[in-house]
Amino acid sequence: MGTPLPVSPLALPLPDMPPIPGVRLATAQAGIRYKGRTDLLLAELAEGTQVAGVFTRNQCPGAPVTYCREALSGGQARGLLVNAGNANVFNGIAGARAVEETSAAAARVLGTTADRIFPASTGVIGEPLPAHKIVAALDGLAADLAEGRFAEAARAIMTTDTFPKGATRTARLGGKLVTINGIAKGSGMIAPDMATMLAFIFTDAAIPAPALQAMLAKGVDDTFNCITIDSDTSTSDTVLLFATGQAGNTPTAEPGMLADFRRALHEMLHDLAMMVVRDGEGAQKLVQITVEGAVSHASARRIGLAIANSPLVKTAIAGEDANWGRIVMAVGKAGEPADRDRLGVAMGGVWMAQAGGIVPGYDETPVVQHMKGREIEIMVDIGLGEGRAVIWTCDLTHGYIDINGAYRS
Amino acid sequence: MGTPLPVSPLALPLPDMPPIPGVRLATAQAGIRYKGRTDLLLAELAEGTQVAGVFTRNQCPGAPVTYCREALSGGQARGLLVNAGNANVFNGIAGARAVEETSAAAARVLGTTADRIFPASTGVIGEPLPAHKIVAALDGLAADLAEGRFAEAARAIMTTDTFPKGATRTARLGGKLVTINGIAKGSGMIAPDMATMLAFIFTDAAIPAPALQAMLAKGVDDTFNCITIDSDTSTSDTVLLFATGQAGNTPTAEPGMLADFRRALHEMLHDLAMMVVRDGEGAQKLVQITVEGAVSHASARRIGLAIANSPLVKTAIAGEDANWGRIVMAVGKAGEPADRDRLGVAMGGVWMAQAGGIVPGYDETPVVQHMKGREIEIMVDIGLGEGRAVIWTCDLTHGYIDINGAYRS
Repeated sequence: MGTPLPVSPLALPLPDMPPIPGVRLATAQAGIRYKGRTDLLLAELAEGTQVAGVFTRNQCPGAPVTYCREALSGGQARGLLVNAGNANVFNGIAGARAVEETSAAAARVLGTTADRIFPASTGVIGEPLPAHKIVAALDGLAADLAEGRFAEAARAIMTTDTFPKGATRTARLGGKLVTINGIAKGSGMIAPDMATMLAFIFTDAAIPAPALQAMLAKGVDDTFNCITIDSDTSTSDTVLLFATGQAGNTPTAEPGMLADFRRALHEMLHDLAMMVVRDGEGAQKLVQITVEGAVSHASARRIGLAIANSPLVKTAIAGEDANWGRIVMAVGKAGEPADRDRLGVAMGGVWMAQAGGIVPGYDETPVVQHMKGREIEIMVDIGLGEGRAVIWTCDLTHGYIDINGAYRS
Repeated sequence: MGTPLPVSPLALPLPDMPPIPGVRLATAQAGIRYKGRTDLLLAELAEGTQVAGVFTRNQCPGAPVTYCREALSGGQARGLLVNAGNANVFNGIAGARAVEETSAAAARVLGTTADRIFPASTGVIGEPLPAHKIVAALDGLAADLAEGRFAEAARAIMTTDTFPKGATRTARLGGKLVTINGIAKGSGMIAPDMATMLAFIFTDAAIPAPALQAMLAKGVDDTFNCITIDSDTSTSDTVLLFATGQAGNTPTAEPGMLADFRRALHEMLHDLAMMVVRDGEGAQKLVQITVEGAVSHASARRIGLAIANSPLVKTAIAGEDANWGRIVMAVGKAGEPADRDRLGVAMGGVWMAQAGGIVPGYDETPVVQHMKGREIEIMVDIGLGEGRAVIWTCDLTHGYIDINGAYRS
């Protein structure tokens, strides 16, 4: 991690995130790996805070993921402790001990038990976590806790991110207006089929943990699980949703009552997921791939991911080449039902190929113009059924090679 | 296809390939896409030649693949017609007509029927094949047919290849010494689970088509299907094996009698597959990944491919970084049984991690030296069973982005 990376051309500004009653934050420079920046976040959550979480499906998860899965069974949270720079993955029994040690220390400064602390770590894999640096920073963090501070929190959890990521929403719930804030980090080792990278969402709503969990799982499936940067599934991916219950609404788990909250949560997860793609390592273009006419939604998703993960499609987009032949190849390699003689491909709203061949009189001019933009739209019509999915990715550029050929140096 | 690409640093010289009785070859500059080089190959095969073939599993195969699958049912071949520069894929009914037209013309000049002609095309997808240029060249090709010429044939079928690929072997069969020559092309859009790219193998052995087919399918599964450059499965991949029967051996399909031929064929398929990886687009390093201790051979193969297709592993190798953490990540994302606390990772024969953590006293020095070489060896021990697989790939470098960001320009 030598010179800082240039900010992604697809970056979005951080919104103003209001304080969430029941959430107090503090950040510190613990010197875990990075110098001259914050790398540690402590969140104190009000007594009675309900929690939901989804985690990586990688078979070699980090020690903090294992710890969080266990803690989640209680449904309650009093603290969140996140460090950047070291993922504490593949450190064997020492890794598990480091999580226990830091979580116990966080519980101590927050006056709670370790099973209500949720730890998360992100950064390099396979290097021992310097737990003592985290423990040493905790007293100062506890003394510094304050409401607000979401922007600082978003910055403290970054690794190869080039911009901080946050979103805010409000929703009507049980006669009250509740607020939801979310922060996220991630720009490489991003692939779907999991809760991608780290995202932490805070709300003052009163919603019991099982209902929170159901909404989070569904929301992540349609947002974070539909993005891919490089097809590589991180060992540390964690999305946690904390509900402090301070808004004063009547606690409810009734789906109809939760409709507006669900909408707001889904919008926020979508926003955060898009920010992660926009900060894809080396990304110059944001790509939206819509697959229609597949035999099922699951089939459409797999086809969309095959396109989004194809290095040939991604490099063509980087080269501003409307190379629909590579999209056809990627559809075919997905292993899903497809018939080349029914297939259609559009870019920027212009159908280039339909019914298995180039559209007669196809004029490439508007497509060439579209490919020069920052946001690329690809639509594929499989022509077999009603299955539909939308997948988001970024292009594959020299920047990705630069960043990942020298990550540890 | 502007300036020619520099020759891969992993290139191997083309061996001397002796004539194969019953095989006559000719090449021509048909101007299909490239200028100033040959791009068309005609092979005449002796009456009675037996043929076997394996093809892409891409669901959107090229028109020549569809044609060959049909022709293969007859088990006999009299001609092979290959063009480079245009894959004749996704051209709808016009694509099928172009194959029929060129195959019929080839049958005419060879005095046979179109169902004994095997066509293959490689190059850009979705542009109409200029069949008239191929047809116009056929009379000249037929007049020019001669024995030998395998080196010229290997050159005529190249696309983004930076060196021609060929191999030769001999085997004892039924009291005779038979010869096997093979040529191949391929450097991008290479992924396993299919007969990767184009490879044509010629032998003077007398072996009936069903026995040839069984040996070819098994051999391809352990060689071409164990290589990957970019995880992208081509629409055109074709491996054809022609046996002219001119060696005078007693025709046999008996497995024991075929043992030496099977060995020689397997070695040749391995050599050709390695040449394709060595010419991987932008490749600077050849990577061999051995996975042991998986719950089954199939599981080991899937884990090996997850490692070989991981952009993060491939860029780390390009950066000469012995980043075993990314290998752990790739093992975990494969979705196969794995236990991070039993996992071991070695590079260049040095175990860096064992039983879920870094090896005590691990000295990175010899590994750093190994990573600077051209041939990188990775070994992963899953620690669960007896499953084993070997996969070959190359690193992911700026060269891949350069080549594929500008392929059509």
